[in-house]
Amino acid sequence: MGVHCVAVGACGRVLQRAFSLHTAHPTKDMESFFQLVRNIVPALTLKKHKGQDGRIGIVGGCQEYTGAPYFAGISALKVGADLTHVFCAREAAPVIKSYSPELIVHPVLDSSNAVEEVEKWLPRLHALVVGPGLGRDDLILNNVRGILEATKARDIPVVIDADGLWLIAQQPALIHGYQKAILTPNRVEFSRLWEAVLSSPMDTQNHSGSVLKLSQALGNITVVQKGEHDVISNGQQVPVHYWWLPGVLARSRGNVTIRPSRNTGAP
Amino acid sequence: MGVHCVAVGACGRVLQRAFSLHTAHPTKDMESFFQLVRNIVPALTLKKHKGQDGRIGIVGGCQEYTGAPYFAGISALKVGADLTHVFCAREAAPVIKSYSPELIVHPVLDSSNAVEEVEKWLPRLHALVVGPGLGRDDLILNNVRGILEATKARDIPVVIDADGLWLIAQQPALIHGYQKAILTPNRVEFSRLWEAVLSSPMDTQNHSGSVLKLSQALGNITVVQKGEHDVISNGQQVPVHYWWLPGVLARSRGNVTIRPSRNTGAP
Repeated sequence: MGVHCVAVGACGRVLQRAFSLHTAHPTKDMESFFQLVRNIVPALTLKKHKGQDGRIGIVGGCQEYTGAPYFAGISALKVGADLTHVFCAREAAPVIKSYSPELIVHPVLDSSNAVEEVEKWLPRLHALVVGPGLGRDDLILNNVRGILEATKARDIPVVIDADGLWLIAQQPALIHGYQKAILTPNRVEFSRLWEAVLSSPMDTQNHSGSVLKLSQALGNITVVQKGEHDVISNGQQVPVHYWWLPGVLARSRGNVTIRPSRNTGAP
Repeated sequence: MGVHCVAVGACGRVLQRAFSLHTAHPTKDMESFFQLVRNIVPALTLKKHKGQDGRIGIVGGCQEYTGAPYFAGISALKVGADLTHVFCAREAAPVIKSYSPELIVHPVLDSSNAVEEVEKWLPRLHALVVGPGLGRDDLILNNVRGILEATKARDIPVVIDADGLWLIAQQPALIHGYQKAILTPNRVEFSRLWEAVLSSPMDTQNHSGSVLKLSQALGNITVVQKGEHDVISNGQQVPVHYWWLPGVLARSRGNVTIRPSRNTGAP
């Protein structure tokens, strides 16, 4: 069994567990769902060398929180990425390293030259994940601000989650209009972002509309509101959109994608 | 299989192994026992967010002992809690963290501001477990005294075990009359508590009576004496009580619950 099959198998098991709650979905529905995942996981081939199927950077991990950057990094590997680099605080590094020898861990995030240390790796990275286990230490957040600026300057896609979103709520201009950013707030983080960038009260009965508005207010960057159903918008007026549930994959006009998820954030 | 099922499954396997020693219990008896466990584990639902099914604090973990706080924390997660925070001595933290990325570990228990560090997390915790791997260092025990006072002030339920009970034997007033406390002494710890709070000799032939008396002497707090059978009392005169063994679940008047257990204390 190749790495590709292992990754799909791992995804399958995770998803099977998640969706076993929904007893209404028969095996046939699950199959189309797994096919969707198979399409995402890159095929393993002898034609490529290590790194071509994804080199991912994770910016997070501090004294209290070491689990979240590990889960972010190992998940990227399990769904097919080739390499993950975790950039964390010095104290968190040996712990994150100890969770898995698969991760490359750099103890630089609380150092005075953190931006330079991360920046020199940026040319080798395909995408950055900023926030898991980041914490709210001022020195670290200031370094992350610099890392985000450097990431934008190199036009690298960035996913921002957890306390990375807390930073964005403090300084929305940091990410405003950067089309290669994806924000992944849960309900609380979404409210915090809303308050930071919109003056009007949020319509709690209209999630889709709220996600669309926040995305637009942030300059049409992609917002994935995690919850009972994920609500996804890139702020465009008449884009193609998808709703998908296991067994239900529909395409129509609109600007919001809804899919089921669990908010499985980790420490 | 959902997380709920995984947790129940994990419980089931542990209990099945434990009770396989007792060949007299047929499968049917085990089933009613597992059903009891299923009733305790919260159902996984998309309607809740992370944290709603339990945020548990563990106070323990020192230079010598790192296993016990890990087992306390991971057990809470396995039976359905969402988050566990371990508050331990600095030196123990990287080790406890390395056991599992699921735990949030705070290296604060031997610091001069330990009480403040733990206190700021208390509003977010549903229950505290004090004692696993605590040790008997004076500085740490003095900090734990302050943490217990802060816990009582916030009316948070607290389970006290291991060297947490040693502290209570030194200062019974610390917990006297706090109805949200549960003490879980083994035979030796029970004797130590008895000597600390009662002047009369213990009737070693009457466990139930002794547990009742100790509970009353401590101001009717709940005492779980672990042993061949666990003996549980909250010191009340005519409470409802249960005896349960695999296949035997009876309810009657009284003040003592007896259930089978293994004293599986860890380092």
